[in-house]
Amino acid sequence: MLKEIDASKKLKKADFREKHDPLSIRLGELQRACIREEIPTIIIFEGWSASGKASRIGSLIQCLDPRGFEVFTTEKATENERLRPYLWRFWQRTPAKGRIHIFDRSWYRALIRGSDADDAQLANPEDDIKSFEKTLTDSGTLIIKLFLHVTKKEQRKRLISLAGNPETAWRVKQYDWVQNYNYDAKIEQFEEILCESTHETASWTVIEADDRRYADIKVLQTVCDFMKKAVEEKRNRKSEDETISDKSAHLGKTSVLCDVDLSRKLGRDEYAERLKSAQNMLALLHNDMYLKRVPMAIVFEGWDAGGKGGAIRRTVRPLDPRGYKVAPYGAPTGTESSYNYLWRFWREIPKAGHLTVFDRSWYGRVMVERVEGFCSETEWRRAFDEINDFEKQLVDSGIVLVKFWLHISAEEQLRRFNERMNTPSKNWKITDEDWRNREKWNMYLDAVDEMLHKTSTAHAPWTIVEADDKLHARVKVIETVRQELENRFK
Amino acid sequence: MLKEIDASKKLKKADFREKHDPLSIRLGELQRACIREEIPTIIIFEGWSASGKASRIGSLIQCLDPRGFEVFTTEKATENERLRPYLWRFWQRTPAKGRIHIFDRSWYRALIRGSDADDAQLANPEDDIKSFEKTLTDSGTLIIKLFLHVTKKEQRKRLISLAGNPETAWRVKQYDWVQNYNYDAKIEQFEEILCESTHETASWTVIEADDRRYADIKVLQTVCDFMKKAVEEKRNRKSEDETISDKSAHLGKTSVLCDVDLSRKLGRDEYAERLKSAQNMLALLHNDMYLKRVPMAIVFEGWDAGGKGGAIRRTVRPLDPRGYKVAPYGAPTGTESSYNYLWRFWREIPKAGHLTVFDRSWYGRVMVERVEGFCSETEWRRAFDEINDFEKQLVDSGIVLVKFWLHISAEEQLRRFNERMNTPSKNWKITDEDWRNREKWNMYLDAVDEMLHKTSTAHAPWTIVEADDKLHARVKVIETVRQELENRFK
Repeated sequence: MLKEIDASKKLKKADFREKHDPLSIRLGELQRACIREEIPTIIIFEGWSASGKASRIGSLIQCLDPRGFEVFTTEKATENERLRPYLWRFWQRTPAKGRIHIFDRSWYRALIRGSDADDAQLANPEDDIKSFEKTLTDSGTLIIKLFLHVTKKEQRKRLISLAGNPETAWRVKQYDWVQNYNYDAKIEQFEEILCESTHETASWTVIEADDRRYADIKVLQTVCDFMKKAVEEKRNRKSEDETISDKSAHLGKTSVLCDVDLSRKLGRDEYAERLKSAQNMLALLHNDMYLKRVPMAIVFEGWDAGGKGGAIRRTVRPLDPRGYKVAPYGAPTGTESSYNYLWRFWREIPKAGHLTVFDRSWYGRVMVERVEGFCSETEWRRAFDEINDFEKQLVDSGIVLVKFWLHISAEEQLRRFNERMNTPSKNWKITDEDWRNREKWNMYLDAVDEMLHKTSTAHAPWTIVEADDKLHARVKVIETVRQELENRFK
Repeated sequence: MLKEIDASKKLKKADFREKHDPLSIRLGELQRACIREEIPTIIIFEGWSASGKASRIGSLIQCLDPRGFEVFTTEKATENERLRPYLWRFWQRTPAKGRIHIFDRSWYRALIRGSDADDAQLANPEDDIKSFEKTLTDSGTLIIKLFLHVTKKEQRKRLISLAGNPETAWRVKQYDWVQNYNYDAKIEQFEEILCESTHETASWTVIEADDRRYADIKVLQTVCDFMKKAVEEKRNRKSEDETISDKSAHLGKTSVLCDVDLSRKLGRDEYAERLKSAQNMLALLHNDMYLKRVPMAIVFEGWDAGGKGGAIRRTVRPLDPRGYKVAPYGAPTGTESSYNYLWRFWREIPKAGHLTVFDRSWYGRVMVERVEGFCSETEWRRAFDEINDFEKQLVDSGIVLVKFWLHISAEEQLRRFNERMNTPSKNWKITDEDWRNREKWNMYLDAVDEMLHKTSTAHAPWTIVEADDKLHARVKVIETVRQELENRFK
């Protein structure tokens, strides 16, 4: 791919002038079209050292409305970023609907620099990056990947010129000289990276960058072409969207939930004793987590009135409040809903040594959003894989992940709802929405069942908690958390 | 204040039990009332080493709905935080309406640790902190400041016990032992800090903390009392709010804008030459900013169609896109409007070595929000001082701050509006709102005039740009920016 491309292609000044202005106006129009169609766009610039990434970005953004884009430079991870999974910082920087985010170097840094990266490590670089890009493009983000290609000779000329000027000498690092020296080996390596990371939905475009004018026009042209295609596809998709609608494909299969023994109970005394003992141990383990820089995420899902709140409270009670955070999730806010659905969860991924308790989670996608029709069938079906990939990244980065489904019977839920209605101090806990959701019990049962089947993976299994008896449920939750941490420290 | 307080007060177990549950229930009710009344609450815990801040926070949050609060620990600033003004990170952590943010140590760290702080420095610690708290409380934030007081003997006992346990020994630092050793000198210092930072709207409460039960109850009691008062005051204020309404108090005064010579013009050739020369110089200065870690903020305000966009584009064209950001501001979004109005600007404060261009700014408070009645008269009147204090903090922290008012005549605006209407490629730039604003020209003129008067300070003067001629305006902008940077580097 790279070796066959002539990086030294040139454009005359007159030709440049003739092509530039119409392209610039067209790009402005396309930017406004992307805003109207609510398409988020990512443009990444990778390439050789001194291939002119910053200058090309500088030319590109002259044609854009500054109210709609942002430029990000990717360097070595900061101390704060290094405490989290590699892709965390890029998730923070995904664009909202209609926005353009431009990256001077990107998540490919880990691949391109390889062992030189001196950065947070990716466990499975190719897979994780592919899954990251797929999740974004599937949900409508346009990703334009540009690789700036220069000849060995031109690169060398530029490095000498930069190094010779006292104003710019600081930009040239040892790494850059080595890259020029090893140009022929490097081109093989880049070739491989580009080939392996060219997918149907996010392919690379090589920009011949010896000549600045040629490169500027090709960048503009490429960005325009991709945006135009994205706008057209979005418009076509809108008209097709309403066709599929079979939400009950899983109905009739055997439910894992049928076999749950909801009669499990615990006496007051045994409860008090086991709770206390597990809490004491948990406090020590939490301290160890901090010292050994182990992060943990606990996900609580379950029926309304399933007892999530009480279980969470008892789990965190013994812990140092500086080392954990409870992150509760309801319906996404306006800001949140202009990003990919995983974005707001990435923001709360625990850093090394810390615990995040997710009070409801990304599983909303395959439960409430599915049942209530807040996302399309294509979207929630795709989510099973997306979630499995996402959790794999978390686990691979060292996070201890525990997921609880708090299960109660429909009868027990009714009893608790009524109790809430009739107890003034609990009255605020129950809303009309809870009653409406209850009417869809069977649809939810079906969704939950499919979810438990499809997202119980080797790296992140579900723990189903029999929760008709609150005492049994709380003890099971805390003892499971303790056990998982002990396994990690063994 | 501290020395007269008996830190060793005790509470019997039975008394604790009797008091705790009613307080806990009341706190839950008050939290819900604060959500309804949209009151943001900050609770800060300061105090002696080993006075039990984390444990008291742990007890307090057991009584709160986890969906409504968050705990922050203040330690030495991270690398990212150190590149910005000291209070930047605390502005990031101010609560939205109805939320409770709890701080284990806070912005008082700089005062309490003094030269030990090893942190970003505050130029005027007392003044800046006071102004920070006043800005927040004036806009309705409740700030509860708790100081945990222990006796020398109890502190020593706790340090020995922590240090003696291998699980907790790492928590005890040299600083803590020194504090105990110098207890008598320290108590004088703390006394002074507490006295000087007790204001009418954000006073300190000392918590006697030798006895954990006593301390827990006093914390609960204090938080309840403050919240109750805040809820009542908010309810009362609502009924009073609609009384004042004289928006034109400044009318009739002489306008600085009358004397602006809008006939100033520049020929094409002189324009091209001066623009190019200033841009070249600016590119070098921008490089110097990066190397010398100097941050810069440029504020663009002006009439609709005053030429802000064109001036901004020409200012940033020569700059490395990795070193600047254009931050455009329109009406606040839902999320933004649940914070103090300055919050969204604090987020974009440039870090050392970087430039932020504010395309519209915090001055919206005293222009559009004033004229359109989006804030009360009390609020916009207060804003002049708040803005002056805010800008002083920026300048004191080392930021080069330049503020432009792009001034055009009403006739020129009309000409440009019509041009936009009649040119297809510019059509998107003009909206009905622009026409509506134009009808209020005189009200805006009055607001702008008062703004220029009251916020042209020695540390942050306005530059009025005669902008009927675009060429003159652009050159004046860029040459001013260049001049300000040169002054800094001289």
